[in-house]
Amino acid sequence: MKLGMARGEVYLRFSAILVLVLSACLVAFDTQTKVVLLGIQKKATYNDLHALKISVYVTSAAAGYNLLQLCKHSTCSRGNFKGSYMCMAWISLFLDQIAVYITLGTNTASVAASMMAVTGSEALQWMKVCDKFSRFCIQIGGALLCGYVASILMALVSTISAYKVFRMYSPKWFLRLKST
Amino acid sequence: MKLGMARGEVYLRFSAILVLVLSACLVAFDTQTKVVLLGIQKKATYNDLHALKISVYVTSAAAGYNLLQLCKHSTCSRGNFKGSYMCMAWISLFLDQIAVYITLGTNTASVAASMMAVTGSEALQWMKVCDKFSRFCIQIGGALLCGYVASILMALVSTISAYKVFRMYSPKWFLRLKST
Repeated sequence: MKLGMARGEVYLRFSAILVLVLSACLVAFDTQTKVVLLGIQKKATYNDLHALKISVYVTSAAAGYNLLQLCKHSTCSRGNFKGSYMCMAWISLFLDQIAVYITLGTNTASVAASMMAVTGSEALQWMKVCDKFSRFCIQIGGALLCGYVASILMALVSTISAYKVFRMYSPKWFLRLKST
Repeated sequence: MKLGMARGEVYLRFSAILVLVLSACLVAFDTQTKVVLLGIQKKATYNDLHALKISVYVTSAAAGYNLLQLCKHSTCSRGNFKGSYMCMAWISLFLDQIAVYITLGTNTASVAASMMAVTGSEALQWMKVCDKFSRFCIQIGGALLCGYVASILMALVSTISAYKVFRMYSPKWFLRLKST
Protein backbone atom coordinates (compact mmCIF):
# COMPACT_ATOMS: atom_id res chain seq x y z
CA MET A 1 0.00 0.00 0.00
CA LYS A 2 2.81 2.35 0.96
CA LEU A 3 4.47 1.36 -2.30
CA GLY A 4 1.32 2.33 -4.23
CA MET A 5 1.47 5.79 -2.75
CA ALA A 6 5.17 6.20 -3.52
CA ARG A 7 4.50 5.08 -7.07
CA GLY A 8 1.66 7.59 -7.36
CA GLU A 9 4.01 10.36 -6.28
CA VAL A 10 6.60 9.27 -8.86
CA TYR A 11 3.98 9.25 -11.64
CA LEU A 12 2.70 12.67 -10.60
CA ARG A 13 6.19 14.17 -10.50
CA PHE A 14 7.09 12.60 -13.80
CA SER A 15 4.01 13.97 -15.58
CA ALA A 16 4.60 17.36 -13.94
CA ILE A 17 8.13 17.38 -15.44
CA LEU A 18 6.79 16.50 -18.90
CA VAL A 19 4.14 19.23 -18.80
CA LEU A 20 6.62 21.80 -17.43
CA VAL A 21 9.16 21.06 -20.17
CA LEU A 22 6.41 21.22 -22.79
CA SER A 23 5.26 24.57 -21.44
CA ALA A 24 8.80 26.03 -21.38
CA CYS A 25 9.49 24.84 -24.96
CA LEU A 26 6.19 26.21 -26.27
CA VAL A 27 7.06 29.66 -24.91
CA ALA A 28 10.77 29.62 -25.74
CA PHE A 29 10.45 28.47 -29.37
CA ASP A 30 7.49 30.69 -30.21
CA THR A 31 8.29 33.31 -32.84
CA GLN A 32 6.29 35.04 -35.54
CA THR A 33 7.51 37.59 -38.05
CA LYS A 34 5.10 40.03 -39.69
CA VAL A 35 5.38 43.00 -41.99
CA VAL A 36 4.08 45.85 -39.88
CA LEU A 37 4.35 49.08 -41.85
CA LEU A 38 6.01 50.07 -45.14
CA GLY A 39 7.89 46.80 -45.46
CA ILE A 40 9.39 46.97 -41.96
CA GLN A 41 9.45 43.50 -40.46
CA LYS A 42 8.72 42.90 -36.80
CA LYS A 43 9.53 39.68 -35.01
CA ALA A 44 7.56 38.70 -31.91
CA THR A 45 9.38 36.54 -29.36
CA TYR A 46 8.92 35.79 -25.68
CA ASN A 47 11.59 38.41 -24.92
CA ASP A 48 9.08 41.16 -25.65
CA LEU A 49 7.29 40.55 -22.37
CA HIS A 50 9.26 40.36 -19.10
CA ALA A 51 6.65 38.07 -17.56
CA LEU A 52 7.11 35.45 -20.29
CA LYS A 53 10.89 35.54 -19.91
CA ILE A 54 10.63 34.95 -16.15
CA SER A 55 8.04 32.24 -16.82
CA VAL A 56 10.49 30.27 -19.01
CA TYR A 57 13.18 30.37 -16.30
CA VAL A 58 10.78 29.42 -13.50
CA THR A 59 9.17 26.57 -15.46
CA SER A 60 12.59 25.11 -16.28
CA ALA A 61 13.71 25.46 -12.66
CA ALA A 62 10.55 23.73 -11.44
CA ALA A 63 11.13 20.86 -13.89
CA GLY A 64 14.72 20.57 -12.63
CA TYR A 65 13.57 20.56 -9.01
CA ASN A 66 11.08 17.75 -9.65
CA LEU A 67 13.78 15.77 -11.47
CA LEU A 68 16.06 16.13 -8.42
CA GLN A 69 13.23 14.93 -6.16
CA LEU A 70 12.74 11.89 -8.42
CA CYS A 71 16.45 11.09 -8.19
CA LYS A 72 16.34 11.46 -4.40
CA HIS A 73 13.30 9.17 -4.37
CA SER A 74 15.04 6.38 -6.22
CA THR A 75 18.23 6.53 -4.13
CA CYS A 76 16.97 7.24 -0.61
CA SER A 77 13.89 5.03 -0.40
CA ARG A 78 15.94 2.11 0.93
CA GLY A 79 17.03 3.36 4.34
CA ASN A 80 14.19 4.46 6.63
CA PHE A 81 15.57 5.97 9.83
CA LYS A 82 12.93 7.86 11.71
CA GLY A 83 14.78 11.08 12.52
CA SER A 84 16.21 11.67 9.06
CA TYR A 85 12.91 10.57 7.50
CA MET A 86 11.02 13.33 9.32
CA CYS A 87 13.68 15.89 8.49
CA MET A 88 13.62 14.98 4.79
CA ALA A 89 9.81 14.88 4.72
CA TRP A 90 9.59 18.37 6.24
CA ILE A 91 12.14 19.75 3.75
CA SER A 92 10.27 18.09 0.85
CA LEU A 93 6.97 19.55 2.02
CA PHE A 94 8.49 23.01 2.37
CA LEU A 95 10.20 22.96 -1.04
CA ASP A 96 7.14 21.46 -2.75
CA GLN A 97 4.95 24.21 -1.37
CA ILE A 98 7.39 26.92 -2.47
CA ALA A 99 7.62 25.33 -5.94
CA VAL A 100 3.84 25.25 -6.37
CA TYR A 101 3.39 28.83 -5.22
CA ILE A 102 6.16 30.19 -7.44
CA THR A 103 5.08 28.21 -10.53
CA LEU A 104 1.47 29.24 -10.10
CA GLY A 105 2.45 32.83 -9.40
CA THR A 106 4.64 33.33 -12.47
CA ASN A 107 2.12 31.52 -14.64
CA THR A 108 -0.67 33.82 -13.51
CA ALA A 109 1.61 36.81 -13.99
CA SER A 110 2.16 35.69 -17.60
CA VAL A 111 -1.58 35.30 -18.06
CA ALA A 112 -2.11 38.85 -16.79
CA ALA A 113 0.58 40.26 -19.08
CA SER A 114 -0.76 38.29 -22.05
CA MET A 115 -4.34 39.39 -21.38
CA MET A 116 -3.07 42.94 -21.65
CA ALA A 117 -1.62 42.10 -25.07
CA VAL A 118 -4.98 40.64 -26.11
CA THR A 119 -7.25 43.40 -24.85
CA GLY A 120 -4.94 46.42 -24.75
CA SER A 121 -5.84 49.27 -22.40
CA GLU A 122 -7.65 52.32 -23.64
CA ALA A 123 -7.12 54.27 -20.42
CA LEU A 124 -3.34 53.83 -20.64
CA GLN A 125 -3.15 54.12 -24.44
CA TRP A 126 -1.68 50.66 -24.83
CA MET A 127 -2.55 49.06 -28.14
CA LYS A 128 -3.57 45.48 -28.80
CA VAL A 129 -0.87 43.18 -30.12
CA CYS A 130 -2.57 39.84 -30.61
CA ASP A 131 -4.70 40.79 -33.60
CA LYS A 132 -1.46 41.05 -35.57
CA PHE A 133 0.45 38.13 -34.08
CA SER A 134 -2.43 35.69 -33.61
CA ARG A 135 -0.54 32.40 -34.11
CA PHE A 136 2.11 33.57 -31.65
CA CYS A 137 -0.56 34.41 -29.08
CA ILE A 138 -2.39 31.08 -29.46
CA GLN A 139 0.82 29.16 -28.84
CA ILE A 140 1.51 31.23 -25.71
CA GLY A 141 -2.05 30.46 -24.58
CA GLY A 142 -1.35 26.74 -24.92
CA ALA A 143 1.85 27.10 -22.94
CA LEU A 144 0.03 28.91 -20.13
CA LEU A 145 -2.62 26.18 -20.04
CA CYS A 146 0.18 23.62 -19.66
CA GLY A 147 1.54 25.75 -16.83
CA TYR A 148 -1.75 25.49 -14.95
CA VAL A 149 -1.93 21.72 -15.48
CA ALA A 150 1.60 21.47 -14.08
CA SER A 151 0.60 23.64 -11.09
CA ILE A 152 -2.32 21.34 -10.29
CA LEU A 153 -0.08 18.25 -10.55
CA MET A 154 2.48 19.87 -8.24
CA ALA A 155 -0.26 20.87 -5.78
CA LEU A 156 -1.29 17.19 -5.62
CA VAL A 157 2.34 16.21 -5.03
CA SER A 158 2.62 18.72 -2.19
CA THR A 159 -0.58 17.30 -0.64
CA ILE A 160 1.08 13.87 -0.66
CA SER A 161 4.15 15.44 0.98
CA ALA A 162 1.93 16.96 3.68
CA TYR A 163 0.30 13.58 4.23
CA LYS A 164 3.71 11.95 4.61
CA VAL A 165 4.76 14.47 7.27
CA PHE A 166 1.64 14.92 9.34
CA ARG A 167 0.51 11.28 9.60
CA MET A 168 3.57 10.74 11.81
CA TYR A 169 2.15 13.02 14.50
CA SER A 170 -0.15 12.00 17.31
CA PRO A 171 -3.83 12.89 16.86
CA LYS A 172 -4.16 13.66 20.56
CA TRP A 173 -1.04 15.58 21.47
CA PHE A 174 0.13 18.75 19.82
CA LEU A 175 3.11 18.14 17.51
CA ARG A 176 4.21 15.01 19.32
CA LEU A 177 5.47 12.09 17.23
CA LYS A 178 3.66 8.75 17.47
CA SER A 179 5.47 6.14 19.50
CA THR A 180 5.22 3.41 16.89
CA MET B 1 -2.11 22.03 23.87
CA LYS B 2 -4.86 21.43 21.31
CA LEU B 3 -6.38 24.70 22.52
CA GLY B 4 -3.10 26.51 21.83
CA MET B 5 -3.13 25.32 18.26
CA ALA B 6 -6.76 26.31 17.73
CA ARG B 7 -5.97 29.73 19.18
CA GLY B 8 -3.00 30.05 16.82
CA GLU B 9 -5.25 29.34 13.86
CA VAL B 10 -7.76 31.95 15.06
CA TYR B 11 -5.01 34.59 15.43
CA LEU B 12 -3.61 33.76 11.98
CA ARG B 13 -7.01 33.93 10.31
CA PHE B 14 -7.84 37.16 12.12
CA SER B 15 -4.61 38.89 11.05
CA ALA B 16 -5.12 37.55 7.49
CA ILE B 17 -8.56 39.22 7.44
CA LEU B 18 -7.10 42.53 8.67
CA VAL B 19 -4.32 42.52 6.07
CA LEU B 20 -6.72 41.50 3.27
CA VAL B 21 -9.16 44.28 4.12
CA LEU B 22 -6.29 46.77 4.32
CA SER B 23 -5.03 45.64 0.91
CA ALA B 24 -8.50 45.88 -0.70
CA CYS B 25 -9.06 49.37 0.75
CA LEU B 26 -5.64 50.61 -0.36
CA VAL B 27 -6.38 49.60 -3.95
CA ALA B 28 -10.05 50.61 -4.02
CA PHE B 29 -9.62 54.11 -2.55
CA ASP B 30 -6.51 54.97 -4.55
CA THR B 31 -7.05 57.84 -6.97
CA GLN B 32 -4.83 60.55 -8.37
CA THR B 33 -5.76 63.35 -10.74
CA LYS B 34 -3.17 65.04 -12.94
CA VAL B 35 -3.16 67.56 -15.72
CA VAL B 36 -1.81 65.62 -18.67
CA LEU B 37 -1.83 67.87 -21.70
CA LEU B 38 -3.29 71.31 -22.49
CA GLY B 39 -5.33 71.45 -19.29
CA ILE B 40 -6.98 68.07 -19.85
CA GLN B 41 -7.27 66.30 -16.51
CA LYS B 42 -6.76 62.57 -16.20
CA LYS B 43 -7.83 60.58 -13.17
CA ALA B 44 -6.07 57.31 -12.37
CA THR B 45 -8.14 54.67 -10.53
CA TYR B 46 -7.90 50.93 -10.09
CA ASN B 47 -10.49 50.55 -12.88
CA ASP B 48 -7.79 51.37 -15.44
CA LEU B 49 -6.21 47.95 -15.01
CA HIS B 50 -8.34 44.80 -15.18
CA ALA B 51 -5.95 42.93 -12.92
CA LEU B 52 -6.38 45.48 -10.10
CA LYS B 53 -10.18 45.30 -10.39
CA ILE B 54 -10.13 41.51 -10.11
CA SER B 55 -7.66 41.81 -7.24
CA VAL B 56 -10.09 43.96 -5.20
CA TYR B 57 -12.89 41.42 -5.64
CA VAL B 58 -10.69 38.43 -4.83
CA THR B 59 -9.14 40.07 -1.75
CA SER B 60 -12.58 40.94 -0.40
CA ALA B 61 -13.85 37.42 -1.10
CA ALA B 62 -10.84 35.90 0.68
CA ALA B 63 -11.45 38.14 3.70
CA GLY B 64 -15.12 37.05 3.73
CA TYR B 65 -14.14 33.38 3.49
CA ASN B 66 -11.77 33.66 6.45
CA LEU B 67 -14.48 35.46 8.44
CA LEU B 68 -16.88 32.56 7.75
CA GLN B 69 -14.22 30.09 8.88
CA LEU B 70 -13.76 32.07 12.11
CA CYS B 71 -17.53 31.96 12.73
CA LYS B 72 -17.58 28.21 12.06
CA HIS B 73 -14.68 27.81 14.46
CA SER B 74 -16.47 29.56 17.31
CA THR B 75 -19.73 27.64 16.86
CA CYS B 76 -18.62 24.12 15.92
CA SER B 77 -15.69 23.58 18.24
CA ARG B 78 -17.99 22.13 20.94
CA GLY B 79 -19.15 18.86 19.36
CA ASN B 80 -16.36 16.56 18.22
CA PHE B 81 -17.79 13.55 16.38
CA LYS B 82 -15.13 11.70 14.46
CA GLY B 83 -16.89 11.26 11.10
CA SER B 84 -18.09 14.83 10.75
CA TYR B 85 -14.76 16.11 12.12
CA MET B 86 -12.84 14.41 9.30
CA CYS B 87 -15.32 15.61 6.70
CA MET B 88 -15.12 19.20 7.93
CA ALA B 89 -11.33 19.06 8.19
CA TRP B 90 -11.00 17.82 4.59
CA ILE B 91 -13.36 20.53 3.32
CA SER B 92 -11.45 23.18 5.28
CA LEU B 93 -8.14 21.97 3.88
CA PHE B 94 -9.51 21.98 0.33
CA LEU B 95 -11.05 25.45 0.61
CA ASP B 96 -7.99 26.88 2.38
CA GLN B 97 -5.72 25.62 -0.38
CA ILE B 98 -7.97 27.07 -3.10
CA ALA B 99 -8.12 30.39 -1.23
CA VAL B 100 -4.33 30.62 -0.95
CA TYR B 101 -3.75 29.75 -4.60
CA ILE B 102 -6.35 32.21 -5.88
CA THR B 103 -5.22 35.06 -3.61
CA LEU B 104 -1.58 34.54 -4.50
CA GLY B 105 -2.42 34.18 -8.18
CA THR B 106 -4.42 37.39 -8.52
CA ASN B 107 -1.89 39.26 -6.42
CA THR B 108 0.96 38.18 -8.68
CA ALA B 109 -1.14 39.02 -11.73
CA SER B 110 -1.57 42.53 -10.33
CA VAL B 111 2.16 42.78 -9.74
CA ALA B 112 2.82 41.78 -13.35
CA ALA B 113 0.32 44.31 -14.68
CA SER B 114 1.71 47.03 -12.42
CA MET B 115 5.29 46.27 -13.40
CA MET B 116 4.24 46.88 -16.97
CA ALA B 117 2.89 50.27 -15.92
CA VAL B 118 6.23 51.02 -14.22
CA THR B 119 8.57 49.89 -16.97
CA GLY B 120 6.43 50.14 -20.10
CA SER B 121 7.39 48.00 -23.09
CA GLU B 122 9.38 49.40 -25.92
CA ALA B 123 8.81 46.40 -28.18
CA LEU B 124 5.04 46.76 -27.90
CA GLN B 125 5.04 50.58 -27.88
CA TRP B 126 3.39 50.75 -24.47
CA MET B 127 4.35 53.87 -22.54
CA LYS B 128 5.22 54.17 -18.87
CA VAL B 129 2.47 55.42 -16.59
CA CYS B 130 4.01 55.55 -13.15
CA ASP B 131 6.34 58.49 -13.74
CA LYS B 132 3.22 60.65 -13.99
CA PHE B 133 1.10 59.04 -11.28
CA SER B 134 3.81 58.24 -8.76
CA ARG B 135 1.78 58.57 -5.54
CA PHE B 136 -0.91 56.34 -7.04
CA CYS B 137 1.67 53.72 -7.95
CA ILE B 138 3.34 53.73 -4.53
CA GLN B 139 -0.02 53.13 -2.82
CA ILE B 140 -0.74 50.22 -5.19
CA GLY B 141 2.71 48.85 -4.34
CA GLY B 142 1.85 48.94 -0.62
CA ALA B 143 -1.42 47.15 -1.30
CA LEU B 144 0.35 44.39 -3.27
CA LEU B 145 2.85 43.96 -0.42
CA CYS B 146 -0.10 43.53 1.97
CA GLY B 147 -1.50 40.96 -0.45
CA TYR B 148 1.69 38.89 -0.20
CA VAL B 149 1.70 39.11 3.60
CA ALA B 150 -1.91 37.87 3.56
CA SER B 151 -0.95 35.03 1.21
CA ILE B 152 1.81 33.89 3.57
CA LEU B 153 -0.57 34.01 6.56
CA MET B 154 -3.15 31.98 4.63
CA ALA B 155 -0.48 29.48 3.55
CA LEU B 156 0.36 28.96 7.26
CA VAL B 157 -3.35 28.48 8.03
CA SER B 158 -3.63 25.88 5.27
CA THR B 159 -0.59 24.06 6.69
CA ILE B 160 -2.41 23.88 10.04
CA SER B 161 -5.48 22.54 8.18
CA ALA B 162 -3.33 19.86 6.55
CA TYR B 163 -1.88 18.93 9.97
CA LYS B 164 -5.41 18.61 11.38
CA VAL B 165 -6.44 16.22 8.60
CA PHE B 166 -3.40 14.04 8.14
CA ARG B 167 -2.47 13.43 11.79
CA MET B 168 -5.66 11.35 11.99
CA TYR B 169 -4.25 8.79 9.57
CA SER B 170 -2.15 5.80 10.46
CA PRO B 171 1.59 6.12 9.79
CA LYS B 172 1.76 2.49 8.70
CA TRP B 173 -1.31 1.89 6.56
CA PHE B 174 -2.22 3.86 3.48
CA LEU B 175 -5.12 6.28 4.14
CA ARG B 176 -6.44 4.27 7.07
CA LEU B 177 -7.75 6.19 10.11
CA LYS B 178 -6.14 5.58 13.45
CA SER B 179 -8.12 3.46 15.86
CA THR B 180 -7.82 5.84 18.81
